[in-house]
Amino acid sequence: MNIEIISIGDELLIGQVANTNASWLAAKCKEWGLLTTKIVTVADNPDAIKNALVEASNNVEFAIVTGGLGPTKDDITKGVLCEIFDAKLKLNENVLENIKTIFSRRDLQLSELNIKQAEVPENAVILRNEQGTAPGMVFQKDNFTLVSLPGVPYEMKNIVEKQLKQFVINKYNLPPVISETVMVCGIPESFLAEKLEEWENDLSNKKLSLAYLPQPGIIRLRITAETGLINGHEIIYKSIEELKKIIPENLFAIGDTTMEKVIGELLIKQKKTLSTAESCTGGYIAHLITSVPGSSAYYKGSVISYDNSVKTDILNVNSEDLQNYGAVSREVVEQMAQNVRKKLNTDFSIAVSGIAGPDGGTEEKPVGTVWIAISSEKEIISKRFQLTNDRERNIIRASVNALDLLRNMIKQ
Amino acid sequence: MNIEIISIGDELLIGQVANTNASWLAAKCKEWGLLTTKIVTVADNPDAIKNALVEASNNVEFAIVTGGLGPTKDDITKGVLCEIFDAKLKLNENVLENIKTIFSRRDLQLSELNIKQAEVPENAVILRNEQGTAPGMVFQKDNFTLVSLPGVPYEMKNIVEKQLKQFVINKYNLPPVISETVMVCGIPESFLAEKLEEWENDLSNKKLSLAYLPQPGIIRLRITAETGLINGHEIIYKSIEELKKIIPENLFAIGDTTMEKVIGELLIKQKKTLSTAESCTGGYIAHLITSVPGSSAYYKGSVISYDNSVKTDILNVNSEDLQNYGAVSREVVEQMAQNVRKKLNTDFSIAVSGIAGPDGGTEEKPVGTVWIAISSEKEIISKRFQLTNDRERNIIRASVNALDLLRNMIKQ
Repeated sequence: MNIEIISIGDELLIGQVANTNASWLAAKCKEWGLLTTKIVTVADNPDAIKNALVEASNNVEFAIVTGGLGPTKDDITKGVLCEIFDAKLKLNENVLENIKTIFSRRDLQLSELNIKQAEVPENAVILRNEQGTAPGMVFQKDNFTLVSLPGVPYEMKNIVEKQLKQFVINKYNLPPVISETVMVCGIPESFLAEKLEEWENDLSNKKLSLAYLPQPGIIRLRITAETGLINGHEIIYKSIEELKKIIPENLFAIGDTTMEKVIGELLIKQKKTLSTAESCTGGYIAHLITSVPGSSAYYKGSVISYDNSVKTDILNVNSEDLQNYGAVSREVVEQMAQNVRKKLNTDFSIAVSGIAGPDGGTEEKPVGTVWIAISSEKEIISKRFQLTNDRERNIIRASVNALDLLRNMIKQ
Repeated sequence: MNIEIISIGDELLIGQVANTNASWLAAKCKEWGLLTTKIVTVADNPDAIKNALVEASNNVEFAIVTGGLGPTKDDITKGVLCEIFDAKLKLNENVLENIKTIFSRRDLQLSELNIKQAEVPENAVILRNEQGTAPGMVFQKDNFTLVSLPGVPYEMKNIVEKQLKQFVINKYNLPPVISETVMVCGIPESFLAEKLEEWENDLSNKKLSLAYLPQPGIIRLRITAETGLINGHEIIYKSIEELKKIIPENLFAIGDTTMEKVIGELLIKQKKTLSTAESCTGGYIAHLITSVPGSSAYYKGSVISYDNSVKTDILNVNSEDLQNYGAVSREVVEQMAQNVRKKLNTDFSIAVSGIAGPDGGTEEKPVGTVWIAISSEKEIISKRFQLTNDRERNIIRASVNALDLLRNMIKQ
C-alpha cells in the first residue's frame, strides 16, 4: 500500500534541521509493508498544512503528519485537522491524565497552555504519548486515514513503536516489502553498471528491481522484490549468489553495513589484531575503525606521522629512503606498514601516505596521489591510487580503499 | 521570493538516507534571500517526478530539483525534463570535455554510459560539475525557472557554491540577507539561553533576530538583520561586542568556522606546533585537525594508544600508574600529554582517555567518563568530563572539548 508523509516545521524549511523524522518513519513503514511514495515538508502555516493534507487524501489512503502539535503551535495543526475532519476540540480526560503524570514526574507545575493540550478533536482515536504532552491522533474520513504525531523525535518514535505499529498491522494486514542491500567497494559506479548490465537486465524477469546508492568509495546496491512475489527472499538471495560470481573482489557484505564493521568481524573471527600508520589520512582510518563498538578487542592503535620527523623517529623509516623517494612512495609506505606492525606487535597493519591537497602536488605526484601498504607477517602489498583534487574526498576515499585492501588480505 | 525544492530518490523514501541535501539547499537559498516554502521528495519514477515539477511550476517561479542524474538505470530525470521543457537530448561538447577531464584525472577509461552523460537537453543552460560527470542544468519556460542538480552531496554543493549562487544573484538581483554567525563552545544550550536572555530580548528592538543552531559540543548563533535595515552590518557587530562581554570564554569565533580552523590560525600566528595522544577518541581529534588544509605547518602527528601496551611502550606511561589509577585517570592522561609532546617535539599537546561506550563503564567511571589533558612547556591542565551514553556523540564531544581547552591555553 502506498502512503505519504507530511512534515510540518519552519525549522525544516530554513535548513536549520534535516528531516530525519521522515526518513525514520519511511524506514519503519517499509518494514510494515507500507511504501512511502512522497514526503512533503511545509511551514507552520494553516493554508500550507491544509493543502498538503487535502492533496495527500487525493493521492493515498493513508498518510502520516508529524509536527505542529507543541503547546505553542498546536492551535494551527489541530485547527486544520478539525476543519478537514469536521470535528470540534473537546477536553480528553485520558490525555489530561497523561499530561498530569508527565508534569508530576518532572516536578513541574501545569500551565494553562498545557491543559489546553488535552483538548483534542472529538472524533480522533488517541495514541498515548508516554514521553510528552501532545498525543498521537488517528483520523478517518471516507477511505482516508490520517495519523498525526508530535514532531519531537523521541516522542514520535515512542508512539510509533508502542502504538502505531500494532494499529497499522491490525488495520491493514499487509505483506512486508522484501529487499536486501549488497555492499560493493573498489569499482566506480559506471564500471560497475557495465559489468552488471546482463545480470541487471535479467532482474526484471525475476520481478526484482535494483537501485545504486553511491557514497565515497562505496556503492550500496538495493535489490527489491515486487510486492506479493512468492519466495521473494529466496529469489533475491539466488540473484546475489550470481552477483558474487561477477564481482567477487568488490562485493564485501550482504546487508546494510560498513567496511569497518566487516573488518572488525573478520579480525574477531580469526583472533587477529591490527595497527595503522597514517600520514595524509590524518587519523581518519583510526577513527573509522574505532567508531565500531568493541574495536578495542582487535585494534591496538596508530602512529599518525604527519610530519616526516615522526616517520623517522617513531616509525623508524629510513631517512635516506625518505630523501630519495619522497614521503609519498612505495618504499616509505611499505616501511611505515612493516614497522608499525612490529612496533605495536599486531598481525596486520595499514599504512597510507599521500597528497590530500589542495596544495603540495607536483607534476610527478599530483594532488590525489596516494600510496597504501598492507602488511602481515607473511606478506606486504602496496598500491598507488590517483584520487581526486578534493581534500575531504581524498581522505575518505584513501581510507576506504585502504580498509578494502586489508579486507582482501584478511579474508584469504 | 518563494521557492520549492524537489528531491528525487527511492533511497530517501525507504528511509535509507535522510534528506540532508534539501536542508543544506534551503539554508543556502535563505542566505541569498530565497524562502523555501515546500520540500517534496518523490521516487525515481517518471510520473512522480513530472507531477512534482508541474506542481512546483504552478506554485512558484523558481524551483530546484536534486537527484536522478547518475549514469545508471535508476536515473530517469533527464527524460522527464526533456518532456516538460520540450527539448531533445544532444551531445554537449563542454560536458563531454569535463567528463573526460575527470576520468583522465582518475586514470580511468571512459565507458559508453559516461559518454551518454554528456547528452543533455538542448535548451538547458549548463552549470559545470567539477567533481562529477552529471552537470547542473537550468531550464526556463514562461515564467518558471528550474535548476536540476545531481544528488551526490559534494557534487551538488560544489555546483551551488561555484555557479548557481552567482546565477541566482544576477538573475533576481535580490537584496542580500545580512547576517553573521557566532561560534560558541563549552556551554549547554539551555544554560546559554538563560545567560543571553536579556541580550536576546533586546535584539528585536534593534530589528535583529537570533537562531540557535546546535551541533555536538558547539552552538552556532546566527544573528540576522531585518530585510532593508540600514547599517545592518554595523548594528549586528555592535551586538556581537556586547555578546563577547557576556560569554568571553565560550565565544570562540565570529563567522561560520570550526574549532580546528581557529586553532590552526592561532598556531600559525604564534609559530607553534601541536601533537596529540588519543585513546577513546581513536583518531578523531587528529582527523579534525588534519581536515584543515595546510595543517602540516603546525601539526606533527599523533600516537593513538587504543591498547594499554601502546600507552606504556610508545608513550612511556608508567605501568604502575596505569595499574593503580586505570587508563581513564588524571595521572595517565597527563603522562600521555607530556610524553607525546616531548617525543614529537612540539610546543603543545592534547591527550584524551575515556570510556566511549556502549560497554566498559563501571560504577566509579561510567560510560561517558573522559579525562583530557593539555600540555605546554610551561604548564599542564587536566579536566574530567561526564558526557553521554552514546559512543558516537562521546567521541565528537570529547574531541571538541579537548580542542576548546587547547584553544583557551594557546590564546593566553
